[in-house]
Amino acid sequence: MAIQSGERVYVYLEDERDFILTIEEGKFFSTHRGNIRYDDIIGKNFGDWVETNKGTKAYLLPPGIIENVFHMRRNSQIVYPKDLGFILLMLDAKEGDRIIDVGLGSGSMSGAFARMVGETGKVFAYDRREDMVQLGTQNLSLWGVLDRVEIKWKNIESGFDEKNVDALFLDVPQPWDYLVQCWEALKGGGRMGVVSPTAGQVMETLRSFHKLPFLQIEVWEDLFRQYKSDPVTFRPYDRMVGHTTYMTFARKVFELYPENTVSRE
Amino acid sequence: MAIQSGERVYVYLEDERDFILTIEEGKFFSTHRGNIRYDDIIGKNFGDWVETNKGTKAYLLPPGIIENVFHMRRNSQIVYPKDLGFILLMLDAKEGDRIIDVGLGSGSMSGAFARMVGETGKVFAYDRREDMVQLGTQNLSLWGVLDRVEIKWKNIESGFDEKNVDALFLDVPQPWDYLVQCWEALKGGGRMGVVSPTAGQVMETLRSFHKLPFLQIEVWEDLFRQYKSDPVTFRPYDRMVGHTTYMTFARKVFELYPENTVSRE
Amino acid sequence: MAIQSGERVYVYLEDERDFILTIEEGKFFSTHRGNIRYDDIIGKNFGDWVETNKGTKAYLLPPGIIENVFHMRRNSQIVYPKDLGFILLMLDAKEGDRIIDVGLGSGSMSGAFARMVGETGKVFAYDRREDMVQLGTQNLSLWGVLDRVEIKWKNIESGFDEKNVDALFLDVPQPWDYLVQCWEALKGGGRMGVVSPTAGQVMETLRSFHKLPFLQIEVWEDLFRQYKSDPVTFRPYDRMVGHTTYMTFARKVFELYPENTVSRE
Amino acid sequence: MAIQSGERVYVYLEDERDFILTIEEGKFFSTHRGNIRYDDIIGKNFGDWVETNKGTKAYLLPPGIIENVFHMRRNSQIVYPKDLGFILLMLDAKEGDRIIDVGLGSGSMSGAFARMVGETGKVFAYDRREDMVQLGTQNLSLWGVLDRVEIKWKNIESGFDEKNVDALFLDVPQPWDYLVQCWEALKGGGRMGVVSPTAGQVMETLRSFHKLPFLQIEVWEDLFRQYKSDPVTFRPYDRMVGHTTYMTFARKVFELYPENTVSRE
Repeated sequence: MAIQSGERVYVYLEDERDFILTIEEGKFFSTHRGNIRYDDIIGKNFGDWVETNKGTKAYLLPPGIIENVFHMRRNSQIVYPKDLGFILLMLDAKEGDRIIDVGLGSGSMSGAFARMVGETGKVFAYDRREDMVQLGTQNLSLWGVLDRVEIKWKNIESGFDEKNVDALFLDVPQPWDYLVQCWEALKGGGRMGVVSPTAGQVMETLRSFHKLPFLQIEVWEDLFRQYKSDPVTFRPYDRMVGHTTYMTFARKVFELYPENTVSRE
Repeated sequence: MAIQSGERVYVYLEDERDFILTIEEGKFFSTHRGNIRYDDIIGKNFGDWVETNKGTKAYLLPPGIIENVFHMRRNSQIVYPKDLGFILLMLDAKEGDRIIDVGLGSGSMSGAFARMVGETGKVFAYDRREDMVQLGTQNLSLWGVLDRVEIKWKNIESGFDEKNVDALFLDVPQPWDYLVQCWEALKGGGRMGVVSPTAGQVMETLRSFHKLPFLQIEVWEDLFRQYKSDPVTFRPYDRMVGHTTYMTFARKVFELYPENTVSRE
Repeated sequence: MAIQSGERVYVYLEDERDFILTIEEGKFFSTHRGNIRYDDIIGKNFGDWVETNKGTKAYLLPPGIIENVFHMRRNSQIVYPKDLGFILLMLDAKEGDRIIDVGLGSGSMSGAFARMVGETGKVFAYDRREDMVQLGTQNLSLWGVLDRVEIKWKNIESGFDEKNVDALFLDVPQPWDYLVQCWEALKGGGRMGVVSPTAGQVMETLRSFHKLPFLQIEVWEDLFRQYKSDPVTFRPYDRMVGHTTYMTFARKVFELYPENTVSRE
Repeated sequence: MAIQSGERVYVYLEDERDFILTIEEGKFFSTHRGNIRYDDIIGKNFGDWVETNKGTKAYLLPPGIIENVFHMRRNSQIVYPKDLGFILLMLDAKEGDRIIDVGLGSGSMSGAFARMVGETGKVFAYDRREDMVQLGTQNLSLWGVLDRVEIKWKNIESGFDEKNVDALFLDVPQPWDYLVQCWEALKGGGRMGVVSPTAGQVMETLRSFHKLPFLQIEVWEDLFRQYKSDPVTFRPYDRMVGHTTYMTFARKVFELYPENTVSRE
């Protein structure tokens, strides 16, 4: 299938610089290595390349979730791919699920959930900031999943509109203030995840979790390390990401008896 | 929705031992903490608990992908959740995708892909061992995704039956022998992933990758660390997984010019 | 120099089991792989081997600090070699230094400091538990460094007997209670280190550090990963140590002005 | 003891920039935050501060091994403190030891060994590059340990001049070429360490180690992670060092029988 006008293309230059372009007939895109004419791209296939007017090769690839996340417009901290894949698994996000996402932010988590829940599922994305609601809406629209996301400009203090959701993701500065509301929105056995950058936030969140009927409360962090891909010098890169966030997970049950809880206060 | 006979239930005991049970009227399951009568479970809701005949509480939860992977019958090394989530993202597995999985093994990767591709996608799972084909088939059937997976008892040396697949996952001892076949099966811009436990395997695989038109060749590993979830003693656990596998990723292009490749031989 | 009666020998069996033995003429040591006669060892050189009466080879090696630490009698948590080397560097422990060690415990840190300070330095080791004082004394005597360590059975609440020490190491459950006393004992520019297993302890310790004239307050942790030493299967071991302790370091200055401190309370 | 002319002082500015200065009467040092007059420093104590002529505080501290390593003149890759402390322990470097260091490079490892071996020990430092011999000599002289180090401008292919050394450290691009020579120089039970940045180097080195009578062949790497020292935001820094080197260790024995070696070729 040849690339058409209006299509989004992930362009990867020889020097490893990359962009996502929306192809428009007659226009061009300007890079530090010369201009790329969109008309050169139209009719090519993914996997082909075109040249800039300065002779640099530009490979044409379909953009995926990782490229979308790294190239989206954003004004908030994002959940990195290294954490995102694990969160989607731990929340067991899948076709048909109804999932709450707080806060919407730039929309990347809601976008990831929307991919998972398919046509038959739904994502309910809350944010109390109007600018985030606008930006998130734009990004979700761009990725073509806006119809699966119900966006709510709303504070969650007084609770969620939904009941019996399969999973709930909480990315707010003070998650401990909202765990009762989360418990109420989840179905029995439902899964929730919380991300917090600092140790103090996790400890405070754990204190709240242990007062409520949640099971399998787990805290994780991860370190991802990239290696040089040249076989002769195969070794990790000198520098790596040292920290993004702690991830806390738990599952709702209806009752939890004192005798099997740890350090309940 | 009350739990019914025939349903699969993830049972989590007070002492953190866990099982996946398929409920059958009139029967019971025997644990080290007493028997669980299935008739006690029928009619309960997920999130409820029942008691063994020795008074131990058993929480009833819906099994998800992670529980399925850890509790499946297997006779091969599995891809761990810590790696699995990242691989699904890097391969951009999503609704409608056509994905090749080699080898099928116990079926966990094919099962994970099947969840991602939805009703409209397809997984093509190859294995040259008959026992694996049988076991993988059993597990995929148990998880209810067998209709999305086309299982092939077949050696891949002479290539794949499919063309233009979106993604391809290779978990074999000598991946470098099959990269040409993989390239041929992938669509332009398609993504492939390879897992290998040893450094020598990765280096050999990289040598082969660099001889072919693949772009964005990346090697990753990850360390996941769990923390004690008691806020008072919040700290990582003493022991952790030190290594599972290296993960190598690449994207197919149609041509790649010598001047932009690294250490091409 | 042949091994003599009375000497300590690190014995490493073919199957990787190891022991430190003090050689006594006419006696023997019993292992799961047979007995080792001490008379066989006497007269051998380090680097030689002897056989047990069941034919297992036992290599004879001089014990070093790591073997001493792992084979000492102990009734407390030890500082692991992975952390120990870094602590010795960060405290700049060296010939001629006067160093305070709290608590003495089984004596391994005091033993390590004693090696560093040489004939001209001194270690002052405090512990409030009599059993620790006894055990630490025994171990330091065994390692031949007792003359460099002044052991004090004493609580540090009312301060230290020494002034102007070069370095101070604090391994107690509530380090934040003693930072003023530590500051008083250190010389200007002197270095101190604190080890604490939990995040909460570190945070509390940091709160206290930031109220006092300490500079270059740094917190570190480390992960050490061992690899299989067979070149064919070169890869990290499956399991590793996930956590031992957080290490906090700081240097004493006489005055510190509010404007250059971070989140001073 | 007041700071005197000729003394080396580690200067730490309010903004965390740092320098090592050798104080000379009547002179000054120019920083981005103003000049520091050396006459202001003379007579002050370590732990005091002086002000630049623009009012920035500069703390005066005694330089230690870590400050020396990070502020030395160098034209080679250095062994980082995170690895250095562990290497010193694994080689059991201590008073009275005779230690071989190859290559000398900028002198930091020889300097570290010289601190450990004391007045009664000796370091033998080899380098085949004349410029390194000169630079290493300068740095060791600056640190006041040149009398403990015998520097040799010499290739090690034909072996070492010393026998029965306690430890040997090898930091060369192709360590596998020299293991026989190393074995010959070591005493029975002596320890050696090798650093290599790439996996391929380690594998090649292991192949050579396994052909020789070496015991306890171990390969390690480490990750050190620094945390923000503000208790309110306590968390790891965003970025960290991902890799410096692999460290391979082994101990010499006189004979090693085939039956207890792994993958000997």
